[in-house]
Amino acid sequence: MTTGHVAVQVAVSTVIFALRPHPETGLMSMWMPLVRRIREPYVDRWALPGGPLESDEGLAESAARTLAETTLLAPRYLEQLYAFGNTDRSPGDRVVSIVYWALVRSEEADVAVETENVRWFEADSLPDLAFDHNLIVEYALWRLRNKLEYSHIAHEFLGDTFTLSELREVHEAVLQKSLDPANFRRQIEGSGQVVPTEHLQTGGRHRPARLYRYNRAATAENNGPLGNRSFTPGATQGAS
Amino acid sequence: MTTGHVAVQVAVSTVIFALRPHPETGLMSMWMPLVRRIREPYVDRWALPGGPLESDEGLAESAARTLAETTLLAPRYLEQLYAFGNTDRSPGDRVVSIVYWALVRSEEADVAVETENVRWFEADSLPDLAFDHNLIVEYALWRLRNKLEYSHIAHEFLGDTFTLSELREVHEAVLQKSLDPANFRRQIEGSGQVVPTEHLQTGGRHRPARLYRYNRAATAENNGPLGNRSFTPGATQGAS
Repeated sequence: MTTGHVAVQVAVSTVIFALRPHPETGLMSMWMPLVRRIREPYVDRWALPGGPLESDEGLAESAARTLAETTLLAPRYLEQLYAFGNTDRSPGDRVVSIVYWALVRSEEADVAVETENVRWFEADSLPDLAFDHNLIVEYALWRLRNKLEYSHIAHEFLGDTFTLSELREVHEAVLQKSLDPANFRRQIEGSGQVVPTEHLQTGGRHRPARLYRYNRAATAENNGPLGNRSFTPGATQGAS
Repeated sequence: MTTGHVAVQVAVSTVIFALRPHPETGLMSMWMPLVRRIREPYVDRWALPGGPLESDEGLAESAARTLAETTLLAPRYLEQLYAFGNTDRSPGDRVVSIVYWALVRSEEADVAVETENVRWFEADSLPDLAFDHNLIVEYALWRLRNKLEYSHIAHEFLGDTFTLSELREVHEAVLQKSLDPANFRRQIEGSGQVVPTEHLQTGGRHRPARLYRYNRAATAENNGPLGNRSFTPGATQGAS
């Protein structure tokens, strides 16, 4: 069905963000696992986990498969980010990469242990990656930071319930700036995005704090007719 | 690069929405141009304008080319909507369709004259389309209706300046429900999405009305690192 000089190939890659403390500063920031390329082009460069789309698998299935094969990660959901199809993005080939992304909690992220060919990098200070993967990550970071404004995406880094301090810490880690607790509380409560539960978080150094949950009715961030964003091969068949 | 039984093919299609009065009711609603398929599969069914991705063109370029070839339409911008890659969406083939969408003003839409193989349909009452194109349109409608809430997308149906009545009429046409003028004015002005200009719209049946423009600072709806959303082959090379 494709015409022109070379066949158009389809690859699926995934951007995974996890919040981790910086080893030196201890400050929380976004980290992502990258995979070392073991063949040309860009042999030995770091790249997003991914690979060619198999003809018998859906897009999200492909993202989940290559992610598991390379990093052992199995996010609760994968969301389609964007399709990158610049003609010059893969030397000698014409590859359209459909990129998925996911935010994972620290405990989920821990299965992706570092090996010679898998390493975690701070998302804001990456080396030169293979292909246009620096641009892809830059776009993913930009989308994530924008989505914080109007969606419940920060929730993906948290449990079903959380304190406003925990939510603020996620915002601070993603936006890489400290936020005034009182202003943050006022804005979040004013947005109607979160609703208080009847439970308190006890223990720890602090006095008991109210636990909140997201008010899903207030956010339209899902795939609508394509099904919800939770990744299961069945659920995303319709979406992919 | 792809493996498996059949080669994965890439197609690019476009969803075009224009606001038009219904021929019977006269009420404004969303209409879209569809193209009759002249070959199998789904010969004679209506489908989104589109076609195979040429190996030497970017994704948005391909969308613009096939759109112009079939409908003569040349929207000021095309935005990537979603990549559809369900394994069973094209009988006998494996086709991944990367779908772009655009909103066009009535005057832009008028170039797409109806022929035997090009017809305008009301977006909310389509016949059975080829492939999964009904699902694609359903998703595009859902996305558009959601984006009205937090983006300046309605602006694409309007000029650079507009009255709040004109803006309300766009919202009413897209959401297919009538909105209370006073509430709408309050919500829009409260959102900070629009700013009044120093100009009034004069003439016509009504008394002069304040002209507004969108406050782009208040909306983050663009492609960020991928460049702005205005479609020019140069500008979208980075995005596609």
